[in-house]
Amino acid sequence: MRFVDTIVKKREGKTLSTEEIREWIRGYVQGQIPDYQVSALLMAIVFQGMDARETYDLTMAMMNSGDLLDLSQIRGVTVDKHSTGGVGDKTTLVVAPMAAACGAKIAKMSGRGLGHTGGTLDKLESIPGFNCFLEKQAFFDQVNRIGLAIAGQTGNLVPADKKLYALRDVTGTVDSMPLIASSIMSKKLASGSSAIVLDVKYGSGAFMKTLEDAVALGREMMDIGRAAGRKVSVIVTDMDEPLGCAIGNALEVKEAIDTLCGRGPEDFTHLCLAVGSLMLVTAGIVRDEKQAQKRLEEVLANGAALEKFKAMVRAQGGDVSVVDDPRRLPKSRMTTELRARQDGCIDHMDAMNLGTLAMQIGAGRRTKDDAIEPETGIVLRAKVGDCVKEGQVLAQVCHNVPLEQEWIHGFYDSISLSGSPGQRRPLIREILTSY
Amino acid sequence: MRFVDTIVKKREGKTLSTEEIREWIRGYVQGQIPDYQVSALLMAIVFQGMDARETYDLTMAMMNSGDLLDLSQIRGVTVDKHSTGGVGDKTTLVVAPMAAACGAKIAKMSGRGLGHTGGTLDKLESIPGFNCFLEKQAFFDQVNRIGLAIAGQTGNLVPADKKLYALRDVTGTVDSMPLIASSIMSKKLASGSSAIVLDVKYGSGAFMKTLEDAVALGREMMDIGRAAGRKVSVIVTDMDEPLGCAIGNALEVKEAIDTLCGRGPEDFTHLCLAVGSLMLVTAGIVRDEKQAQKRLEEVLANGAALEKFKAMVRAQGGDVSVVDDPRRLPKSRMTTELRARQDGCIDHMDAMNLGTLAMQIGAGRRTKDDAIEPETGIVLRAKVGDCVKEGQVLAQVCHNVPLEQEWIHGFYDSISLSGSPGQRRPLIREILTSY
Repeated sequence: MRFVDTIVKKREGKTLSTEEIREWIRGYVQGQIPDYQVSALLMAIVFQGMDARETYDLTMAMMNSGDLLDLSQIRGVTVDKHSTGGVGDKTTLVVAPMAAACGAKIAKMSGRGLGHTGGTLDKLESIPGFNCFLEKQAFFDQVNRIGLAIAGQTGNLVPADKKLYALRDVTGTVDSMPLIASSIMSKKLASGSSAIVLDVKYGSGAFMKTLEDAVALGREMMDIGRAAGRKVSVIVTDMDEPLGCAIGNALEVKEAIDTLCGRGPEDFTHLCLAVGSLMLVTAGIVRDEKQAQKRLEEVLANGAALEKFKAMVRAQGGDVSVVDDPRRLPKSRMTTELRARQDGCIDHMDAMNLGTLAMQIGAGRRTKDDAIEPETGIVLRAKVGDCVKEGQVLAQVCHNVPLEQEWIHGFYDSISLSGSPGQRRPLIREILTSY
Repeated sequence: MRFVDTIVKKREGKTLSTEEIREWIRGYVQGQIPDYQVSALLMAIVFQGMDARETYDLTMAMMNSGDLLDLSQIRGVTVDKHSTGGVGDKTTLVVAPMAAACGAKIAKMSGRGLGHTGGTLDKLESIPGFNCFLEKQAFFDQVNRIGLAIAGQTGNLVPADKKLYALRDVTGTVDSMPLIASSIMSKKLASGSSAIVLDVKYGSGAFMKTLEDAVALGREMMDIGRAAGRKVSVIVTDMDEPLGCAIGNALEVKEAIDTLCGRGPEDFTHLCLAVGSLMLVTAGIVRDEKQAQKRLEEVLANGAALEKFKAMVRAQGGDVSVVDDPRRLPKSRMTTELRARQDGCIDHMDAMNLGTLAMQIGAGRRTKDDAIEPETGIVLRAKVGDCVKEGQVLAQVCHNVPLEQEWIHGFYDSISLSGSPGQRRPLIREILTSY
């Protein structure tokens, strides 16, 4: 069968066979099917979708396109966690050590950020000396020894996704539920953990704009995981305003440390407990959510979670003293306080805009080749639901070059005030479990 | 603006600006926009369509991507004619000399065939010595001298269409009304004639499967032509069964000569008179259709049309003796008569299947690099509406290698018989004129 026939079949809304999907991925990775045919098929999928069987087949074909991480060397129950990406999302930095302190094994592969959302590796690298490049054996040994490791990809995991994602990025074909689900799940399944918690975000700062889409994506990924024999849970959370207060790498590491010390922002702490609890329950480490909450509150209160974080920083060559004193993290050359221009109550903050503004002053990457300035970013001093007086500080901006007037306008445009305290949207909207 | 934003805009169903369309075609022809982005945009257009303004802009951008043929050297009224392609469609071979014999100037660029439909150049080249490659000046001189010339493209006409069409062919994006309309019209407009007649075919042997689609395509092309200041007429015709009786290059030339001698198949002669009449009326050479019919019947009866054909063959180096005696055209090594296996009346002939069968024995090309065997093909001895007795010849097959059993099965599968004489579909369904 010629590949153009596969394209036409999908264009006409028909279902591709397992064999056709395998041939597509095999031929593409081997360079036999050219980009221009694959991008046409991807656009046809954007319009015609894929059913559950096709999406599962695509995920498996992508997963099998490269190495699979065999975690059998790791003693204990492995748990993975993934977020679909948001502004100020430093959840991994907190839940990984919390879950490890409760006995879970976290062998986590993370990525870098692009656009308005940051990457976990970028955040960790703002700790002086921290090394994200671990050899496979060193990675396994560290997980066995201290319970967690967070590193960049080791080995040639899911090359099909790398190639496909780069193509989707420049052909307007990112926005497709089955393509997003198979991209995420192929990587999670190849990474080997037996239990997986997916934090699917929706709202102005997320890729999914509506709750319905986020739930549908979560359900699709859960079904794929179940079919592949993994335990998968999904938590659907609001990303309309930034998560917590800090946006920017070193600033977010500080906020994570604060949270591990029990003095983090309320919304972010709440999310960490929920995600951590879901990790423990999904992995079967605790009986139920109630017990999970109790254990997590214990490891926060007795410092065990913070100690796990510190052990990871030490094991990966980072400067541990910054954990005891986050003021030792890199500092920006300038700090500007932006103040309320009138009395009012914040009824909306545009997470996407604030993420983009942070990126513009060095906290993120516009293109893959941009360098990050870890010390830059924004710390919000007020959030949705708060009422402020004229002159009260709304945010502190950490930057290395003077802020342009347009940037400052952009900041004020991202925050809308009204006369009376509005409704704060609930952060956690749905929890789906597959077992 | 990045080109991916243009793709997303169309994917979301928005209208592209004139500037965006120009940039697309300019960047693509110059190699700045890669195939993989253009194929994604083409697939988005397949789903979202283009409005009249976008289609016009695309046509103009394509037309202006290369040379334009300036026909001002030609004395008299130039008329062009185009068919969207069908099985057994040798209309140009008859209407061009007929219209020239009535005083029209026919400076016609033709193409080669691919797949189940043949090309006018392939047909003409079955006349020994016939030369389709004319220099521009020789082409103009011939039109001034004898009133017609049919040749392959001279100069670099519409390079954007060549590049786009090759891409559409392998990415499943051929099937889009605005893309088909702009492809045809960019070439017709670049070829310079002031009057254009478009024969839009529909049915099993044509690209358009329904009358509605054919009328819509015709209307779209007519609107483009009118906006570009040309006189355009459209004739919508049935292509459910093959046109005439002959399928295959030399066989079709013979049928065209027979028709110019007044002894062609009834359906084909009827179409030639209708298309020829529309050419004369659209060009303003005659007052009305009635006068056109009278003139055309005259030039058939008095041999003037046949003389024009002969003059063209002579001018382009062909062996004129084959016009007087078509038995001198190339002959296949074998001839097989296929007979009715039972009594019955033909109620359907699958033109697409018959075209494909003819291609398989050498009458057409599967890929651009295939060679044509001009002497091969099929001559139908019965058509839809005819009743046949068991053993009566249905068709004569001209071939160079023995026919395979599967091929013969395919032939019988293409013809369905029923108990009573069915309705013959009218050949000409709609005539649209823009002036």
